[in-house]
Amino acid sequence: MGKKSAKDKNTKDGALWSQEPWQALRAGTLGPIAEFDPDRTPGFDGDREDGEKLLAQYGEELSDLQEMLFAQGRSGGTRSVLLVLQGMDTAGKGGIVRHVGGLLDPQGLAITGFGKPTPEELAHDFLWRIHKALPRAGRIGVFDRSHYEDVLPVRVHGLVPESVWSQRYDLINEFEAELTAAGTTVIKCALVVSKDEQKTRLAERLDRPDKFWKYNPGDVDERAYWDDYLDAYQAIFDTTDTDHAPWFVIPANRKWFSRLAVARLLLQTLRGLDLSWPPADFDVAAEKQRLAASD
Amino acid sequence: MGKKSAKDKNTKDGALWSQEPWQALRAGTLGPIAEFDPDRTPGFDGDREDGEKLLAQYGEELSDLQEMLFAQGRSGGTRSVLLVLQGMDTAGKGGIVRHVGGLLDPQGLAITGFGKPTPEELAHDFLWRIHKALPRAGRIGVFDRSHYEDVLPVRVHGLVPESVWSQRYDLINEFEAELTAAGTTVIKCALVVSKDEQKTRLAERLDRPDKFWKYNPGDVDERAYWDDYLDAYQAIFDTTDTDHAPWFVIPANRKWFSRLAVARLLLQTLRGLDLSWPPADFDVAAEKQRLAASD
Repeated sequence: MGKKSAKDKNTKDGALWSQEPWQALRAGTLGPIAEFDPDRTPGFDGDREDGEKLLAQYGEELSDLQEMLFAQGRSGGTRSVLLVLQGMDTAGKGGIVRHVGGLLDPQGLAITGFGKPTPEELAHDFLWRIHKALPRAGRIGVFDRSHYEDVLPVRVHGLVPESVWSQRYDLINEFEAELTAAGTTVIKCALVVSKDEQKTRLAERLDRPDKFWKYNPGDVDERAYWDDYLDAYQAIFDTTDTDHAPWFVIPANRKWFSRLAVARLLLQTLRGLDLSWPPADFDVAAEKQRLAASD
Repeated sequence: MGKKSAKDKNTKDGALWSQEPWQALRAGTLGPIAEFDPDRTPGFDGDREDGEKLLAQYGEELSDLQEMLFAQGRSGGTRSVLLVLQGMDTAGKGGIVRHVGGLLDPQGLAITGFGKPTPEELAHDFLWRIHKALPRAGRIGVFDRSHYEDVLPVRVHGLVPESVWSQRYDLINEFEAELTAAGTTVIKCALVVSKDEQKTRLAERLDRPDKFWKYNPGDVDERAYWDDYLDAYQAIFDTTDTDHAPWFVIPANRKWFSRLAVARLLLQTLRGLDLSWPPADFDVAAEKQRLAASD
């Protein structure tokens, strides 16, 4: 397959995206999450086939930009990218990691899943485990769940008093501001499925022996707290959708669209870094001579 | 693209592989490394086009088997896989990580690159940093360089006395035996380029501004120690090519072949684990009822 110029690619994208996900899915511009329709594909005029083609196409540019970021990290650059993924059970976070992360060079990718905190993690501040997992310079970090767990299930189930969790929104904003100032570009994606679609997906896990391992009886219990989760997500969007660490709400009833949208957001993020190849920190001509003179 | 049965795949593979890499590339069965021809494609009768097609084809099965391994890890299984990559500069370790690792789900992959040890690492036993990076249950770990650095450059440049490095072969064998006993399947691949091919690849890095970042003036200095490195590799193959942690020598003058061969070795390793989906640890019928009864 021949390489297309960046311009051609943009033109083709332009024809399918009537509005960039950066605008169409930005949390702050959407209405209440409780009225959000996870079946829609906002801003995208193509169908599934178009979406899958485009996703594969993004792979090449994503991977080129990633290599440039990586090269800069190796050459003293301080920049990195952090993609935060949140979402209800079955919303498809794992699929995003697999299908979007899979477009990237695994060497430059740092994926961390945050489960129920361990006793050691609980003995520290809630951001302790987060700090430890931040991507180093040149890397793209992906958080499968994140510090937002501490204002989602923790809030819904009252695992800490309100006086504690209610302070976390500010703490998170401060943390993300510091992170950004230190060179990490942060984007946050919340995958949203409908309650019906979740039921269908859980039922599938119970029907297929190759999916049993993904099923957790607790997931059914959590469904009783659906509206509380929506409230908790709304609070996040209301308080932590900042310009330095924006939230995007990803409709996830159609997996092909959620993958495409996250890939597009990541692509725009990398393009926005204005990356270039680091210059040689050695004398190129002299090195050519030394190499030629070696056996 | 329709799924082919495992049998079809084997048949097609069978037509192209006259001998499995598992046999054709096993260090112990080859002659002296100094006489090894990195241009050859032992055991493989196809050309580059066949090789690239086959590599993409392995992706599907690799990724299915990896998911099963991952599922077992989530369900109390203790098994994991560790792929150790060594090779001279420009031999293509990074390309293996990118193109073979890229076939896998990044969630189940744990890649660690080992550079020059930090002061903290030097203050510990040479296996300290290795232990910390071992793949957890269910994961495929990839070491880009490894504990073998401590008997390669360290030996070649006499960074520790011979009395110290000469004991490391036994220590490594013991370590790898323990690792295997604990559930980790270990395969080790040494990528070998010819001295001429290395020169060509280094020259390319000096010709292309997008490759400057990969160039290190020290690489030219290292070429003067070529034969010492061959001796150090020979010593590794002679002492640490064990049945529980075998060494394979990968001819790497043709990148497409080295990638194909490592992918094939990894595929055989995963097939050899006789994986299956973990059974449900809950009452499937009861859960179906609970789910159906939820809103």
